[in-house]
Amino acid sequence: MYRTKTCGELRLSNANETVTLAGWVQIVRDMGHLIFIDLRDRYGMTQLSLNADSDAALYNMARSLGREYVIQVTGKVIERTSKNSEMATGDIEIFVENLTILNEAETPPFTIENKSDGGEELRMKYRYLDIRRPHLKDVLVTRATMIRAMREYLDSKNFIEVETPNLIKSTPEGARDFLVPSRMQNGSFYALPQSPQILKQLLMVAGMDRYYQVVKCYRDEDFRGDRQPEFTQLDCEMSFVNQEDVFENFEGMVKHVFKKTNGVELPDFIRLTFADAVKYYGSDKPDLRFDCKIVELNDSLPKSEFPVFNNAIAAGNLVAAINAKGCAAYSRKQLDELTEFVKASHRGLSGLVNIKFNEDGTVKSSVDKFYNEEQLKEIGKALGAEKGDLILIAAEKASKVRKSLGDLRLELAKRESWIKPGTWSVFWVVDFPLFEKDEETGETNFVHHPFCSPHPDDLQYFDSDPLRVRAQTYDMVMNGNEILSGSIRIHQRELQNRVFNKLGFSQEDIDHKFGFMLNAFRYGAPPHGGCAFGIDRWVMLMTGGETIRDSMAFPKASNGRDLMMDAPALVDPKQLTELGIAVVNKD
Amino acid sequence: MYRTKTCGELRLSNANETVTLAGWVQIVRDMGHLIFIDLRDRYGMTQLSLNADSDAALYNMARSLGREYVIQVTGKVIERTSKNSEMATGDIEIFVENLTILNEAETPPFTIENKSDGGEELRMKYRYLDIRRPHLKDVLVTRATMIRAMREYLDSKNFIEVETPNLIKSTPEGARDFLVPSRMQNGSFYALPQSPQILKQLLMVAGMDRYYQVVKCYRDEDFRGDRQPEFTQLDCEMSFVNQEDVFENFEGMVKHVFKKTNGVELPDFIRLTFADAVKYYGSDKPDLRFDCKIVELNDSLPKSEFPVFNNAIAAGNLVAAINAKGCAAYSRKQLDELTEFVKASHRGLSGLVNIKFNEDGTVKSSVDKFYNEEQLKEIGKALGAEKGDLILIAAEKASKVRKSLGDLRLELAKRESWIKPGTWSVFWVVDFPLFEKDEETGETNFVHHPFCSPHPDDLQYFDSDPLRVRAQTYDMVMNGNEILSGSIRIHQRELQNRVFNKLGFSQEDIDHKFGFMLNAFRYGAPPHGGCAFGIDRWVMLMTGGETIRDSMAFPKASNGRDLMMDAPALVDPKQLTELGIAVVNKD
Repeated sequence: MYRTKTCGELRLSNANETVTLAGWVQIVRDMGHLIFIDLRDRYGMTQLSLNADSDAALYNMARSLGREYVIQVTGKVIERTSKNSEMATGDIEIFVENLTILNEAETPPFTIENKSDGGEELRMKYRYLDIRRPHLKDVLVTRATMIRAMREYLDSKNFIEVETPNLIKSTPEGARDFLVPSRMQNGSFYALPQSPQILKQLLMVAGMDRYYQVVKCYRDEDFRGDRQPEFTQLDCEMSFVNQEDVFENFEGMVKHVFKKTNGVELPDFIRLTFADAVKYYGSDKPDLRFDCKIVELNDSLPKSEFPVFNNAIAAGNLVAAINAKGCAAYSRKQLDELTEFVKASHRGLSGLVNIKFNEDGTVKSSVDKFYNEEQLKEIGKALGAEKGDLILIAAEKASKVRKSLGDLRLELAKRESWIKPGTWSVFWVVDFPLFEKDEETGETNFVHHPFCSPHPDDLQYFDSDPLRVRAQTYDMVMNGNEILSGSIRIHQRELQNRVFNKLGFSQEDIDHKFGFMLNAFRYGAPPHGGCAFGIDRWVMLMTGGETIRDSMAFPKASNGRDLMMDAPALVDPKQLTELGIAVVNKD
Repeated sequence: MYRTKTCGELRLSNANETVTLAGWVQIVRDMGHLIFIDLRDRYGMTQLSLNADSDAALYNMARSLGREYVIQVTGKVIERTSKNSEMATGDIEIFVENLTILNEAETPPFTIENKSDGGEELRMKYRYLDIRRPHLKDVLVTRATMIRAMREYLDSKNFIEVETPNLIKSTPEGARDFLVPSRMQNGSFYALPQSPQILKQLLMVAGMDRYYQVVKCYRDEDFRGDRQPEFTQLDCEMSFVNQEDVFENFEGMVKHVFKKTNGVELPDFIRLTFADAVKYYGSDKPDLRFDCKIVELNDSLPKSEFPVFNNAIAAGNLVAAINAKGCAAYSRKQLDELTEFVKASHRGLSGLVNIKFNEDGTVKSSVDKFYNEEQLKEIGKALGAEKGDLILIAAEKASKVRKSLGDLRLELAKRESWIKPGTWSVFWVVDFPLFEKDEETGETNFVHHPFCSPHPDDLQYFDSDPLRVRAQTYDMVMNGNEILSGSIRIHQRELQNRVFNKLGFSQEDIDHKFGFMLNAFRYGAPPHGGCAFGIDRWVMLMTGGETIRDSMAFPKASNGRDLMMDAPALVDPKQLTELGIAVVNKD
């Protein structure tokens, strides 16, 4: 046994006990005649003390210790003369009687402290040192706590964790598959699952009734934004349920996880339709930790000769505004920044109209020429404008206006710190459309995936007006992030086939790729539905991280590389020969 | 809500309640005027009854139901006139007032009962129907229960579950890697982990202290015996521990899992050295549910002119025997079968000498010419022979004799039903050698893997007599199966490098493949050790299965194919172009 106690547990009540600790040297403070060492392990930090008088050899050994040396010490727990109330063990120290160096350490390439001096690339290369930093270690512990709470809840509700295979068949679920060449069947490939979607549906056909799995999923995508080629889902499915049953279970689970992890008691989740989310917040995953709704003005604008608004309305476009509370004093430069923000190419507005409701009661606008003060106040009224507020108005194609004002409200929230730290907004978005039209190709695509059930009330429009058909699809949104996506699934063979057809799959393709699933639906498939949580993102939100890289032990860098292991890498040509594949250069 | 109760929960105390159930039609028994239906879901089976008089339309609908139809029924719980004590719900039935067909079913390709009429290939193709059979469903539930109990125990001991990546670097750990071509880095490959061995050791360097993970591992091996290309381990690692600490934790965990899963209280585990296991049982994973030890006779054979034994001893070979209790009456044919068994090419004995201690007191032997009755009795004494026993003796190269007699004792146990159903034998095997010599190539290989720590007492022989060096390696054996393998690891950079050298790796190879690990050891690696459990095999043993295919939801067939999904499969040539690889035909 290397230790009798950990570095996090000793208190004044342990005084006079003789204990053995093991851990890493955080710092050695040589006070001349006296040495203090902070000893660190996963559980905390404990101060050691040595005295030149009592044992000179021991004292000299202690002086020789460097940062991150691994040592074992035995000594007596004594009360500190100067206590440190910031440390859990700050009331005591260990008066060292015995010291063994278990392993030496070279000087680490960056400091092992919450505020490290290492850049992200360096820290990813030495991830095993980065994890020694208390913050990252705590994230991994919190992640484990959260997943434990998920399992605890689901187990109590009769869900069964079932493992599904990772060497499966390549099926198009929206993203690109990672492929695994088969050695035994030259020319054939397994695929790594983008999700266990089909397999969990087959578990419902198999009668498993309630399934979950904490499972790795794989998508070979270009690294736009905050993505990882492998990520973790909590994947769930239930039989004999409608949307309400799914909501009840998983709302309950999320509340349980919060309570167990950070003690927060979440209120009941509201439900927002997809249409309302887009209309009022310009996003299907709005952040509702602050208000600032988009207000549509087409029907309420005062009469004026202002051509921009008039033309927009005539063309069937949208005139809409948000109220930037308390921003009336924005300078010309600040307003220009907001205009540049909405003019960015992925938003594409051509400009913003502003109305300032100044603190002195005056009202100023960039369109004073076209609207008198009464009219501006009338517009302000529609947005609940008070003294000090700034109204920002856009008038273009509805989708552009909504997206831009939606982004703008987030940008304002950031600039104005509208979001109080520690606040949570968690709710459902419902009634997504089943299909959407690709604006470039004109093709009909699925919004979520091809297995979502159409809303029964809308089946009548399936052929005549497919874009009008709502799906029984739902998302859970947490602080402006989609944290869950799910749906009631199709369980009828004919309907599933119709949806595949509508999505443009040939019957041959359907049979080749989904034949086994459609076949399964012949033999008594129950009504079923479910969802999947993005665990990495949820952990990121719970732990205040900035990217999902902060949520995992060994993430990939943005180009898909593991900087620590240096993977992917060249392999022995013999391995490729065995697999019957060759590398060909891409253009 | 599709149901108010499941098919497994109604009892007499529910009589007169109106309930709604949903499930699969197991069987429709049409008694003319009365129909009984067995309705099945994951939780059990409930009998429904319908009566032609009360509702003719309903009655006719019920008559039309086929096997595996999915239905929903509402009705009153009534006491049965003829109760079925074999069914948990056998005291009641539901008098159906409402029936909805949720989905029809074609006749399934085999019967959905514990004794199915479908062959294994057919059942694997329709695995979603096979899982409806109560036995296979129960296996999956037991598997989940066992894994839950493992987590429960480890969580209570401060272990943290950490997920390690599955797209890693190809490192030689003994088996062949599955490779994943990188699209973003043409010509490079990820590998799927054979185990998270190096990553968990890095988590110890990272200070995580106690780690576990229920994790998929991948080996691209030819399908000898009962293997799967992907399988599940409980992977564990601890810092600041010696063997005893590991034993204490995981012996405790196994006892906890048994108690929680099947209520069995296991006694404390014995420890058997590798040398004794091989000497007495001819195997490093002996089945100790029965005795039948191998007895070495080289030093105790009575003097005789029998050339086989004399030559064997002169050549330094081994003469050894087992006592087949109660088998003295074996016929010539049975004895011939045993001889053929040990002559099989992978055992390679040239024959067996037998001595029968007949019930009538006589002693007969196949070597009566060379040994008188007194001498035969003397041999019998060494083996504790009594009336009715059969002694079987082999005399050849020690390794062959041990392997053959070890296999023979298992074969006899099967023939003679020596193993009482429901008995458990779980123990540790310790003191494995660090290296072994490949008999064909003469190369020094590792016995477990290159990260096992040599026994400190034996380091002195590392260069002079490496085969003499014991490793701090251990296995856990359960009913003759290796269920856990583990070791105290090397945590010193120099020693790890020495081991790699001894194994014949060039320094260039070491740096390329293990550089990141050796590098990590520069910065304060703690002493650490751990183990990994084979979950599939443990589940197989707990549930009385014959192969690990029985332990998983969607196993591969023996050629690595998923018969249900039909994977691996050809992929779109576009996918290969994107990956920058081409298929080349193997010879």
